[in-house]
Amino acid sequence: MKYPFVNEDNMALLTDLYELTMAQVYFKENMNKTAVFDFYTRPDKRRPYLVSAGLEQLLYYLQNIRFSSEHIDFLKSTKKFSDDFLDYLRDFRFSGNVYGVEEGQIVFPNEPIVQIEAPLIEAQIIETFLINTLQISILIATKALRCYSVAKGTDLVDFGLRRAHGTDAGMKTARNSFIGGFVGTSNVLAGKEYNIRLYGTMAHSFILAFGDEEKAFEAFAKQYPEGSVFLVDTFDTIEGIKKAIKVVKNLKLKNFKGIRLDSGDILYLSKEARKLLDEAGLTEAKIFVSGGINEYKIKELLDQNAPIDAWGVGTELAVSADVPYLDCAYKLVEYDGKPKMKLSTKKITYPAKKQVFRYYKDGVIEKDILALYDEAFEGEKLLTLFIKDGKLVKSVPSLEEIRLKTIKNLSKIPQNIKDIYSNEIFLPQISKKLENTIEQTIKALKGENR
Amino acid sequence: MKYPFVNEDNMALLTDLYELTMAQVYFKENMNKTAVFDFYTRPDKRRPYLVSAGLEQLLYYLQNIRFSSEHIDFLKSTKKFSDDFLDYLRDFRFSGNVYGVEEGQIVFPNEPIVQIEAPLIEAQIIETFLINTLQISILIATKALRCYSVAKGTDLVDFGLRRAHGTDAGMKTARNSFIGGFVGTSNVLAGKEYNIRLYGTMAHSFILAFGDEEKAFEAFAKQYPEGSVFLVDTFDTIEGIKKAIKVVKNLKLKNFKGIRLDSGDILYLSKEARKLLDEAGLTEAKIFVSGGINEYKIKELLDQNAPIDAWGVGTELAVSADVPYLDCAYKLVEYDGKPKMKLSTKKITYPAKKQVFRYYKDGVIEKDILALYDEAFEGEKLLTLFIKDGKLVKSVPSLEEIRLKTIKNLSKIPQNIKDIYSNEIFLPQISKKLENTIEQTIKALKGENR
Repeated sequence: MKYPFVNEDNMALLTDLYELTMAQVYFKENMNKTAVFDFYTRPDKRRPYLVSAGLEQLLYYLQNIRFSSEHIDFLKSTKKFSDDFLDYLRDFRFSGNVYGVEEGQIVFPNEPIVQIEAPLIEAQIIETFLINTLQISILIATKALRCYSVAKGTDLVDFGLRRAHGTDAGMKTARNSFIGGFVGTSNVLAGKEYNIRLYGTMAHSFILAFGDEEKAFEAFAKQYPEGSVFLVDTFDTIEGIKKAIKVVKNLKLKNFKGIRLDSGDILYLSKEARKLLDEAGLTEAKIFVSGGINEYKIKELLDQNAPIDAWGVGTELAVSADVPYLDCAYKLVEYDGKPKMKLSTKKITYPAKKQVFRYYKDGVIEKDILALYDEAFEGEKLLTLFIKDGKLVKSVPSLEEIRLKTIKNLSKIPQNIKDIYSNEIFLPQISKKLENTIEQTIKALKGENR
Repeated sequence: MKYPFVNEDNMALLTDLYELTMAQVYFKENMNKTAVFDFYTRPDKRRPYLVSAGLEQLLYYLQNIRFSSEHIDFLKSTKKFSDDFLDYLRDFRFSGNVYGVEEGQIVFPNEPIVQIEAPLIEAQIIETFLINTLQISILIATKALRCYSVAKGTDLVDFGLRRAHGTDAGMKTARNSFIGGFVGTSNVLAGKEYNIRLYGTMAHSFILAFGDEEKAFEAFAKQYPEGSVFLVDTFDTIEGIKKAIKVVKNLKLKNFKGIRLDSGDILYLSKEARKLLDEAGLTEAKIFVSGGINEYKIKELLDQNAPIDAWGVGTELAVSADVPYLDCAYKLVEYDGKPKMKLSTKKITYPAKKQVFRYYKDGVIEKDILALYDEAFEGEKLLTLFIKDGKLVKSVPSLEEIRLKTIKNLSKIPQNIKDIYSNEIFLPQISKKLENTIEQTIKALKGENR
């Protein structure tokens, strides 16, 4: 019986076989000049902007990836690898450069979010883990910021752990939703590891075990006189609210936190709840709503003036339910100084090492220019060097700092694409020099391959 | 800089805060009689059947969950827990019973897939992790079997690691797709830990690094003379196929494995590839297809007689793209011998400890009966005891055995719901006694709560 967890000791093997077989070929062919790979996404109207996220975990991986003797023995047992290549892996360290868009920054399709510049073998081997870490982080940070963008200052809490796709996704949901503006999480381990504030109320099973709402509320309030949020929808919601109020009065609870609605007609119930609470003098008591919440439901309810103070966002956040994956890629764009690109499909890849330059007008993003790395535009450079020659050269901000930046960045997104119903695509302009490089690369490739 | 991985040492804290606060209230109230909780799913027309999966990992968790001193210290620091409850947690062991539907078995909505019978506090604390582990496992095993059901004997390989939602999801994709009929995975760590066969070809970056398909194929074939699958769609796919053939001829490769198509008009290209390979005498060479593959594309292509031998299924499998989450629940159905159920919504929960009895006709599932646990129906009992009083009493089969059972079980699914385009719902019949229990429970609850 086993549950093989992934950790720092075995993460090097969490890769696709072909990364290692290709690496062996490069090794044997002595092909290990500097390569540049871009990680970027392709246009998707459902996500006109994305939030950069996951960089810290990627940097951790790149600093710590090691092939242990146990790994080497396993690889040897597959009979696909020669001893000299396995010796190479034994000493494997990532020695390249990492350019990244800092976490919390807004990014658009076709813009490199991470650019790896490293000896070809290293840049290849890290591919699978890089995508595995970045994609879900970006998905969740973006979904969270979409919720935040319509929440009008109400509090958002991550309730996604149970429905996240496994243990690691649960941790990433907490971290990246916090980046995207959430105030906390229900995930205790994430609270501990990331120092994120913990939230929790009570379950229907709690009410059912007592068999009686009043008894359940009373027992909870006895333990948590200042932290109780009563779940009122187990039997009849309006009756549940009245019972919650009765318990608050009977126990003379001070600083009663509020009630949670998890089902039913939330607009109606939240208004009734507010009325009943206010009539009872509990004007400070909050109304907490959960159950299938996403950015659309938040906006719909708040636009109708539902008096909701806080949201528990679970499944829809944790799996990014409407967009559970990004059309993203990690593509070779340069090898040994020569620009590279794939030709066969309509999906264009932009060759060469690049930089993204951002321009603002009245504090709002006006345009991005995708250019060759050393072009001299004046705009804000989105890609900065985090790892140089394998060494961390730029420190990663605290989660709290990233969160504040993300919230600030929200105000810089043009209104038409910030709208959660937006159907527009915002793409970077391509610089003249990059355009020339594309043309020359295509010409050269067609020459070579005919 | 950190990447807090989840492992056996910290998994106890991978839970929602409210599990622990409710547990403390139960502890203080001395409410720790036997509770029964059901894990089940609600009807979803897009998934008329599900494959039970993830039980082994759940059993592992239940056997090994421990709160360490570090955990206790953290919980103490939140100021939400009293010393006596923390002492209880320090000695926490799961001491209950676990009834489960064996992995690979077909299950339907409203049927308990796992039933926990344990002291209330224990049954509550394990909730979050239980759902986290089971949901994604079931999603992937089911998606995999749907692919298998239309693959007409062609090989299916898991290419999902990079797009899975984090590290753990990558491991679960490999394991559960294997259960669902896949032949192997690209995930090296999963290959090692689960002894699943590893597959891999080459990436576009590999061709681009060489700048020339012939050189790239030759270099790869030199290292892997018997294991080479050439990726032919980097520039011009038909030309790529011709170059692959040329290299096979030039190097006099024996047992050439085949080519991979990853983009373009796969029906046309696979037929052209087959023709070209056959004309060259390479009748044994396989055609491997990847790129946005799911059960619908497999069926569509094979129905048009596309000569495809094997599939790399990635994103769509790993995130169960069309159904990225199940409407699933872990509900209290009995406490201290009394049946329990929630009333406020239209979603019915079935009270009491239960059993599912299955009937077959001509080897095909005819009906399931959802009944009280001790009713004496003759059908096959789906729920069996895996853990009794905290001890494992039924061994978990090998992955290979589970896989073979799953494939056998596919033939037992009624044709109308096996169809991947099925729009039907198959529900268990409810036994008379269970119906009576439901009525009595509702009556009792309404009495108590008015």
